[in-house]
Amino acid sequence: MIKQLEITLPGFRRGYHLITSLIEKELPELPEKGLLHILVKHTSAGITLNENADPTVRSDFESFMNKMIPENDPVYQHTLEGSDDITGHLKSSVIGAELTIPITNHRLNLGTWQGIYFCEFRNSGGRRKIVLTILS
Amino acid sequence: MIKQLEITLPGFRRGYHLITSLIEKELPELPEKGLLHILVKHTSAGITLNENADPTVRSDFESFMNKMIPENDPVYQHTLEGSDDITGHLKSSVIGAELTIPITNHRLNLGTWQGIYFCEFRNSGGRRKIVLTILS
Amino acid sequence: MIKQLEITLPGFRRGYHLITSLIEKELPELPEKGLLHILVKHTSAGITLNENADPTVRSDFESFMNKMIPENDPVYQHTLEGSDDITGHLKSSVIGAELTIPITNHRLNLGTWQGIYFCEFRNSGGRRKIVLTILS
Repeated sequence: MIKQLEITLPGFRRGYHLITSLIEKELPELPEKGLLHILVKHTSAGITLNENADPTVRSDFESFMNKMIPENDPVYQHTLEGSDDITGHLKSSVIGAELTIPITNHRLNLGTWQGIYFCEFRNSGGRRKIVLTILS
Repeated sequence: MIKQLEITLPGFRRGYHLITSLIEKELPELPEKGLLHILVKHTSAGITLNENADPTVRSDFESFMNKMIPENDPVYQHTLEGSDDITGHLKSSVIGAELTIPITNHRLNLGTWQGIYFCEFRNSGGRRKIVLTILS
Repeated sequence: MIKQLEITLPGFRRGYHLITSLIEKELPELPEKGLLHILVKHTSAGITLNENADPTVRSDFESFMNKMIPENDPVYQHTLEGSDDITGHLKSSVIGAELTIPITNHRLNLGTWQGIYFCEFRNSGGRRKIVLTILS
């Protein structure tokens, strides 16, 4: 069986945001076993699994990703919307914009330290849409 | 229900190529709701979602990824097939070689600006195979 | 139909390890067609598809990823558990901690040269858990 819903996230500032609880609140009752697929419907945002406890992991992601994929590199041509334009697109494909998570015993089956990060790569990304698909 | 097919892409030159329409043409009639999974059966090519409009996004991907994962780095040992050999493998795992997309109302449910990029990391990759699996 | 199991991997040393056979041995009889989803339940390990033959691909991954995401960068704050702490988290999100593979004719349908890499990013990661979900 397949259930599907589309939700709009609150507007997040640029950075990495733990959204596990937010997602869980939006989900209908989960099946005993299955998969949850999450798609971010944007090309300068991302979604990934990472540490759900210490907030410096999220701030280190912001600091380091900005070094690995720096703004204002002279190779870029797609910069019409500002220095965070093409770098947002690049980060989106390096981190990924979709994710699948197993469902076990009617709950998301993540590791103890795993949480879902929503990654906003633009300075002013606005409210972002995601599609949630539950397979069972 | 599961439908599955394997297709062979045309030979693409090195770079990032928008293949959303090509994939849609190969697909059978899609279910009302479901998921499409795409696997690239190669280790020096990739698949990702990104901007479907301005072609400079795709050329910037080529320019920047070549800087982030440069050829001829002295740390590499796996270079028998040329300078694009190991870098093709590295890029494939950084970008990813498989992707899942939700299906809604019998269509791929992507964001307005999202398209499917096929990423050819070799100078002469030849014709590449992909597996399409539709779950409903 | 959905089958699901959780397994514990042997303790792998830091690096990239081919685990295709190990996974295949743990799986129950596979359906004629379907998908296998694999989640690594940790935030400093990863899973990806890459070349299954020459071991220098795996050692080049270790060498190059350590250059691309270097330890002891002064921007990092999350370093309590050592220099491989935050870099393990960053690598996990760049490579990814989950993967979906098509099943065809009761077997994993990978390319001739594709294998499943388990990526241990910590110096002493210990035994890691993964969740296997089979959809058909």
